[in-house]
Amino acid sequence: MQLSFLKKPISQHEGMRFPKGFLAFGRNIGIKDDTLDFGVVFSEIPCQAAAVFTRNNYPGSPILVGREHIKSGKAQAIVVNSKNSNVATGERGIEDAKDMCRATAQSLGIEPNLVIPSSTGVIGVPLPMDKIIPACLISKQFLKEANLTEFADAILTTDTKRKVSFYELEHDNRTGVIFGIAKGAGMIEPNMATMLSFIFSDFVPESDNLQAILKRVVDKTYNCLTIDSDTSTSDTVVLLASGQSGTIPEEQFEIGLLEVAKDLTKMIARDGEGATKLIELKVSNAKDEKQAKKIGKSILNSPLVKTAVYGGDPNWGRFVMAVGKVFDELIPYEGLEIFVGGISVKGADTDTKIKLSNYLKTNEFIEICVQLGTGNSEVCLWSCDLTEDYIKENAYYTT
Amino acid sequence: MQLSFLKKPISQHEGMRFPKGFLAFGRNIGIKDDTLDFGVVFSEIPCQAAAVFTRNNYPGSPILVGREHIKSGKAQAIVVNSKNSNVATGERGIEDAKDMCRATAQSLGIEPNLVIPSSTGVIGVPLPMDKIIPACLISKQFLKEANLTEFADAILTTDTKRKVSFYELEHDNRTGVIFGIAKGAGMIEPNMATMLSFIFSDFVPESDNLQAILKRVVDKTYNCLTIDSDTSTSDTVVLLASGQSGTIPEEQFEIGLLEVAKDLTKMIARDGEGATKLIELKVSNAKDEKQAKKIGKSILNSPLVKTAVYGGDPNWGRFVMAVGKVFDELIPYEGLEIFVGGISVKGADTDTKIKLSNYLKTNEFIEICVQLGTGNSEVCLWSCDLTEDYIKENAYYTT
Repeated sequence: MQLSFLKKPISQHEGMRFPKGFLAFGRNIGIKDDTLDFGVVFSEIPCQAAAVFTRNNYPGSPILVGREHIKSGKAQAIVVNSKNSNVATGERGIEDAKDMCRATAQSLGIEPNLVIPSSTGVIGVPLPMDKIIPACLISKQFLKEANLTEFADAILTTDTKRKVSFYELEHDNRTGVIFGIAKGAGMIEPNMATMLSFIFSDFVPESDNLQAILKRVVDKTYNCLTIDSDTSTSDTVVLLASGQSGTIPEEQFEIGLLEVAKDLTKMIARDGEGATKLIELKVSNAKDEKQAKKIGKSILNSPLVKTAVYGGDPNWGRFVMAVGKVFDELIPYEGLEIFVGGISVKGADTDTKIKLSNYLKTNEFIEICVQLGTGNSEVCLWSCDLTEDYIKENAYYTT
Repeated sequence: MQLSFLKKPISQHEGMRFPKGFLAFGRNIGIKDDTLDFGVVFSEIPCQAAAVFTRNNYPGSPILVGREHIKSGKAQAIVVNSKNSNVATGERGIEDAKDMCRATAQSLGIEPNLVIPSSTGVIGVPLPMDKIIPACLISKQFLKEANLTEFADAILTTDTKRKVSFYELEHDNRTGVIFGIAKGAGMIEPNMATMLSFIFSDFVPESDNLQAILKRVVDKTYNCLTIDSDTSTSDTVVLLASGQSGTIPEEQFEIGLLEVAKDLTKMIARDGEGATKLIELKVSNAKDEKQAKKIGKSILNSPLVKTAVYGGDPNWGRFVMAVGKVFDELIPYEGLEIFVGGISVKGADTDTKIKLSNYLKTNEFIEICVQLGTGNSEVCLWSCDLTEDYIKENAYYTT
């Protein structure tokens, strides 16, 4: 496995491995400024496809169209624009998302329902179709091999870093690659956090369970991520598996997919708005995974926990409070254990508080373990600290 | 009705009305520094008493003792210290809270179980009983009439303002007063937000329903308040009604109590950590009150909504997102209406966005109305904006 967390812009692809047969590009078509704002990924052959979309009750138009298109379990291309999310744009927005698929499909010579659309950016403003449709119609000429990183750059908004990760697989003397891309919860004008992630593979699992595999992996990764408790209307994870390098046992495929997704999830957490630290929280000895996740999210969404991590405040009582405020999950206090950076903090004396404060102040990667003492289940969750820069990024209107 | 929202310290009580027969004081006993940190309220006659405590699963020791003492429905005194919350202090903490009651009762010549204890401040540190018990034992000599404001000052922690409110009632040519006191969600060292409120009345309702009345009022006021989604381990509301001015119909009593509680709730919201604005949110046309409250809290706990209010960012999409992220309450988008300062913001054009931004920037009291279009229920909720000062107050350890 190789993980990458590279600064953008990047000009070299040395050391990076790409899945065979996936062509891509990112370019500027002038939606807002002169940065990359449009991209397409195209697989030479139709792929098995699976997707997980936002649970927000007001999904964006591309989500509505994407849900339709993914139903067949097949897809061959993805078309994305940034700077405009096509959310809260009504019937017209849905037509626009469909037109993006049609125009892209026409250029690529495939059926429109094999294209998954995605948009991220300002909400409530119709897409500038005068710029988007011509760009879709000439997609084909820009496609290049080994170019998924350029596409990864085109979907970024206020992320400070490109987010890509890949995993090489070997089976029966054949090699393949699972390659993932994400954009994080950097705020987008006018500031609705959105997470997009696209994952491509030239292997397909031998089983026919792509959607089930993706769902399991999403539950352990993206769904264990919280930046600020808000849920975007555009969150999307799409997986395309071409099989151009053949098939692979489901278990092996899932391990690779999990690594890539976990890696991208951590990158998104670390690059949350204003974040200075990545928090990894393991909740263990829980009654079940549901209980562990509920308690974990209560801790990671607590502004008091997040500000303590930011400033190095050794207030272990905040962790206790965050566990205790989940009214419907009674965790006996005696059995509760809390470790921060390996330091047991419940009932900490002055010396321990100094150690805890030092740990928080001197580390960018903060490990927290909470043992509930109610069973044997365990989950891992990720978040970031809460800083003045989060407030600044989100308080002021910028046009 | 007269409302007050006075800066502390205050030296004059002109214009303020107090319920008859309630003696009180606040003083410094050196728990941490030289500010007021200890107070007692004593009613000349035993009172009907009711209380509502935190739902946090790890309540402080005074809560455990208070729950026992309130069971009789009678109380005659309240003893409070600030600077130390007596939370997470185990068996010893419970004995300490009981000892506070015993020593205070001894001085006042009443039974210990007629005393309700309360503590707010640092957690995980045993109470300094060498200072507290002697202070309890000489309580009687400090008691003064018309002195509830001094007591109100003694329970403050990092609140920037004293919080008192009163309501005069008249019935059968008799007058009485409901007088309420609160401390807010100013952070306390080491920074666990706590809300305490004590309400005193010389009228008693004719019915015997004090607890039911208090519960109904708390549900419409304190339970409609959110500062940062965190729930303290010490939240307490206590109501003592002496009847020294006689009885009054339940409805009339409840109206007065509601006004006082609502007034204190708004003061707490406005004085939230780092707050610059008070937000009043009315959620109407809801299926039921539960739905209205759930959607309302989702809006008021959204950091994106709170930072937009702070900075005057006219991002109406954040309100839509916050309604939509309550997955299990599907509100049809067409029927949803959102007004901020009377401005309809859903689908706002540029002109409307400018108006919205101006409204947010130029007002300290922000009125938001959200109509769900799913029924006829309505609730009102309060919160404050989220600012850099919240982060600063909670990120850094101060001893």
